Amino acid sequence: MSAIDHLLHANEQYAATFPGPRPLRPKLRLAVISCMDSRLDLFGALGLDIGDAHLMRNAGGLPTDDILRSLALSQRALGTREVVLIHHTQCGMQDFDDETFREKLAAESGETPPWDVPGFHDLHATMRASLARVRGCGWIPHRDDVRGFIFDIATARLEEVT
Amino acid sequence: MSAIDHLLHANEQYAATFPGPRPLRPKLRLAVISCMDSRLDLFGALGLDIGDAHLMRNAGGLPTDDILRSLALSQRALGTREVVLIHHTQCGMQDFDDETFREKLAAESGETPPWDVPGFHDLHATMRASLARVRGCGWIPHRDDVRGFIFDIATARLEEVT
Repeated sequence: MSAIDHLLHANEQYAATFPGPRPLRPKLRLAVISCMDSRLDLFGALGLDIGDAHLMRNAGGLPTDDILRSLALSQRALGTREVVLIHHTQCGMQDFDDETFREKLAAESGETPPWDVPGFHDLHATMRASLARVRGCGWIPHRDDVRGFIFDIATARLEEVT
Repeated sequence: MSAIDHLLHANEQYAATFPGPRPLRPKLRLAVISCMDSRLDLFGALGLDIGDAHLMRNAGGLPTDDILRSLALSQRALGTREVVLIHHTQCGMQDFDDETFREKLAAESGETPPWDVPGFHDLHATMRASLARVRGCGWIPHRDDVRGFIFDIATARLEEVT
């Protein structure tokens, strides 16, 4: 059985007890930006319920243009107000050489990747830069409640970065 | 209490019974691309456990350049092989006028957004275009197992799009 078939079987069980639809606009008026990492179960780790918050996730949990697009839409069209950024220990983007990666992709595919998202070294410095990018972004109307945390993969605890 | 304080309280309880670290590389060798929508609890809906799969999420669940960057890194650096794309009913990107949105952001902020991610109309046609984009992307080495589903917000059931 492939991984995907495994998911479809689990989905049947989930749907059987699903409580039904919730509103489009997130109840907590919150957006969470985090890494795609498989060890981040945001519903569990943050006590979220269905319908509570928008979740944006990419490699690194970095506020790229696509994440800022999503956040602008989240606040302007769907009513969110607070923002949480989460980076985490043992991240695949830590000490990742994006330049070599892009060169390899360009050489293999014949198409140069348009992104430039460098790997990072210091998690706290990276979070401060991520917070600054969101707080300085004119596309995002609500920037008073933007907070950043580092999730510890070993303990699941959140450390706030200020 | 702000929404964020609510999350921090829940996190303390989560951490108290957290089972401990898992490996960096996803156990199911799977990446899931979906919308940021608050009603998509992917761990629940797909029966995922901590450490199983990478989750990439943006507004619409569309395979933008940033999502393809994340997927390339997921497969090349972290060993995933299968890909699931999930769009859903009642999506905020359905019938969304991205052009007017970008013009408004540019007028208010003085900075023109670099993205061009149109809203969509027909969910099935959009999923077929999303599948084609991933399957045609030379940066992604493993494209044999790329499947697309529409999640029904009312019933939680997945419908495969082929």
